[in-house]
Amino acid sequence: MKSSSLPGFRDFYPEEFRLRQHILSGWREVARRYGFIEYDGPPLEPLELYTAKSGDEIVEQLYSFTDKGGRAVALRPEMTPTLARMVGGRAQSLPKPIKWFSVPQLFRYERPQRGRLREHFQLNMDIVGETDVAAEAELVAAAVDVLRHFGLDETDFVARVSDRRLVSLLLREAGVEDDRLREAISALDRSERQGDDWLVDRLTALGLGERAIERVLGIRERSLAELAREYGGSDEISDAIGRLQDFFRLMDAQGLADYVAFDLRLVRGLAYYTGLVFELWERSGRLRAICGGGRYDGLLAALGGPDLPALGFGLGDVVLGELLKEKGLVPEASERVDDFVIFVTAEQRPAAIRLARQLRERGRSAAFDYRGRTVGRQFRAADQVGASRAIVIGPEEERDGTVSLRDMETGAEGHVPLTDLLTEAAPPDAHPEPPPQEA
Amino acid sequence: MKSSSLPGFRDFYPEEFRLRQHILSGWREVARRYGFIEYDGPPLEPLELYTAKSGDEIVEQLYSFTDKGGRAVALRPEMTPTLARMVGGRAQSLPKPIKWFSVPQLFRYERPQRGRLREHFQLNMDIVGETDVAAEAELVAAAVDVLRHFGLDETDFVARVSDRRLVSLLLREAGVEDDRLREAISALDRSERQGDDWLVDRLTALGLGERAIERVLGIRERSLAELAREYGGSDEISDAIGRLQDFFRLMDAQGLADYVAFDLRLVRGLAYYTGLVFELWERSGRLRAICGGGRYDGLLAALGGPDLPALGFGLGDVVLGELLKEKGLVPEASERVDDFVIFVTAEQRPAAIRLARQLRERGRSAAFDYRGRTVGRQFRAADQVGASRAIVIGPEEERDGTVSLRDMETGAEGHVPLTDLLTEAAPPDAHPEPPPQEA
Repeated sequence: MKSSSLPGFRDFYPEEFRLRQHILSGWREVARRYGFIEYDGPPLEPLELYTAKSGDEIVEQLYSFTDKGGRAVALRPEMTPTLARMVGGRAQSLPKPIKWFSVPQLFRYERPQRGRLREHFQLNMDIVGETDVAAEAELVAAAVDVLRHFGLDETDFVARVSDRRLVSLLLREAGVEDDRLREAISALDRSERQGDDWLVDRLTALGLGERAIERVLGIRERSLAELAREYGGSDEISDAIGRLQDFFRLMDAQGLADYVAFDLRLVRGLAYYTGLVFELWERSGRLRAICGGGRYDGLLAALGGPDLPALGFGLGDVVLGELLKEKGLVPEASERVDDFVIFVTAEQRPAAIRLARQLRERGRSAAFDYRGRTVGRQFRAADQVGASRAIVIGPEEERDGTVSLRDMETGAEGHVPLTDLLTEAAPPDAHPEPPPQEA
Repeated sequence: MKSSSLPGFRDFYPEEFRLRQHILSGWREVARRYGFIEYDGPPLEPLELYTAKSGDEIVEQLYSFTDKGGRAVALRPEMTPTLARMVGGRAQSLPKPIKWFSVPQLFRYERPQRGRLREHFQLNMDIVGETDVAAEAELVAAAVDVLRHFGLDETDFVARVSDRRLVSLLLREAGVEDDRLREAISALDRSERQGDDWLVDRLTALGLGERAIERVLGIRERSLAELAREYGGSDEISDAIGRLQDFFRLMDAQGLADYVAFDLRLVRGLAYYTGLVFELWERSGRLRAICGGGRYDGLLAALGGPDLPALGFGLGDVVLGELLKEKGLVPEASERVDDFVIFVTAEQRPAAIRLARQLRERGRSAAFDYRGRTVGRQFRAADQVGASRAIVIGPEEERDGTVSLRDMETGAEGHVPLTDLLTEAAPPDAHPEPPPQEA
């Protein structure tokens, strides 16, 4: 073959497509149960949609280029700017809160590395126009339920929950100057990988004294109750702690207490979060984040959209797919074809094709051998496509208006009138729209 | 808003997404019934995948550019080259015939015109590794059934069927020199728009005499039987006619005779077809082609793939969507939410959230008001999201373990034990994977 696919892009052969479909329809199913509705935008957007807020730095990671009309464009790296534009276009007429989800394919121009992809699919669930903490509880519960839907449970993963506002307030209380706050948060974010010594160095460099550094390190270990006792004197901090306590009570009311853990070591790198942030993490030693999100009240306005409070998360297909494979949670290939119609001589081919069609009209999937090889080879073909039943039409069957049947799994055989076979299959009216991808 | 979407690209708001979803899941459903399995490739491909065969001319219509690694790349304009590469990668191990389908978003750099899009979704169904004419009958029947699935019938559209090989043989028989064959076919293709006078001029320019031109014009009007009588002396022509007659017999056997029409005026512009070609056309005066395809036996090898016979068609979402709208065949918005849980005072909020979760675990879609406004406003919110049932929990209900119900359509009200409500909803095990997008 002259040409292969571009580095970092996946070909989805039927087997890989099946896993992708399993993941994407699971996402859609959970989002539907939560009353979210699906939208989508273009995979190609004006570059300025992404640089307007984040500046030109982000261009490095973008799959961006100049099109034939001289326009700077980019393959979408994330969905939030598109969401901001679309909500902005109809902000007045949409009832609040807006509960939308999307399943875009996203693109990044990553350095090519072993196994590093330049595209992935991502579930995005967002709530726009709601400040109440019940929205946070809803969103984290939805993310947890997405993983539970695939068979993962509290022994497999945990939602680490933190709060960007609370972290800022505590750092300030510990002695970090306002103009150093962002750097301190970023240091805290990176300390999980870099270690405590590294963090102490960074905080020292930011001008913190020994006692302030002690307090910062300590913050990360405290429970909400301990923080309330230690820092409860500040109204703002009390308020932030109270809100988080409400959040945990709502998770508890849903029976999800074992799925969430308060953990101020988590801050999430992105600058635009304004309140609760969370990530779903695998519990094994490998420590991969599966999903992340939080409240980003100022972002839509900053992107040029409406000034509405908002929160959301993104959950990708790649880490999830690896996890499901490791845990043996990828379902077996289901039968590809319900009925394989076999014709004994060329004379029965029209009858076989007609029968296949009648079965299809009744919602069953049906196939037959186009060229009419020997009956033995037709049975082999039935086997190859994973047919669950073979239906044989020979000269006698055609004359008598009957068919012979073989259950391809058990080998059990039978002989029935054609009319019975068609009556047993759901009639067209009773089966107007069977579920896609399911037999 | 600072930025709008690029010209020719669609934002899919929930309402538009619903139509897209209706179309795409209909495609998938029909393909499934025919025993085709889904695959996908990357939306971005090396440019050479498209220029290797078609030459540089095609670049004009491509959404192509140079990426940061200096690679010439393009957003995919069609699926067949990707199919050739993927089948080529596993040609040995895949049982034949290969019956694959895909639903890619495709891109063209069209001149921006009113309503002219630069992207669309397209159903691609292909059969690789089969020469028998039953494969043609299967593919045309599948295309017809796709439209029938959406409620269109033989009064709305027809499959015009022609044969590239037969047309070539007849033209040669009429006196067209071999080296003028391609131009003559192209003239025939364009004559439908340009008219007969134009065609006569073109054929004259190609060196045909008056009598030869008569014959060419006549060919377009003949039935298969007439052609057999007139040109049956040639073995090759007899063979091509016989194959087409077999095709029509197989369509007839399936009860689809009214959906197909032999029509040699159709030739399809693309050069790579080698046998039967067909297009689905709206029957109204507007004459829009809805779908097109045919046999392209040499193409996979020419694209650098395996030397396997193949046939397929493409069917886009844009013309089909317009047609469904015109014919009133777009289904009403279905209920977005099954149950809206209303809590009377803030004390019942945890109970309401817990109930919503239990309903969701039973496969129902459920929502509630995050901030707990007045009961009246919560009912209004239930109405806004199109809930089919409101479930009210007040202090008495919470104490007694009951709920109040209101059917949001009929207004009928009731009062039942909570346990009954949850038993009626399908238990988790009985409802492991309800169909996506459907209540």
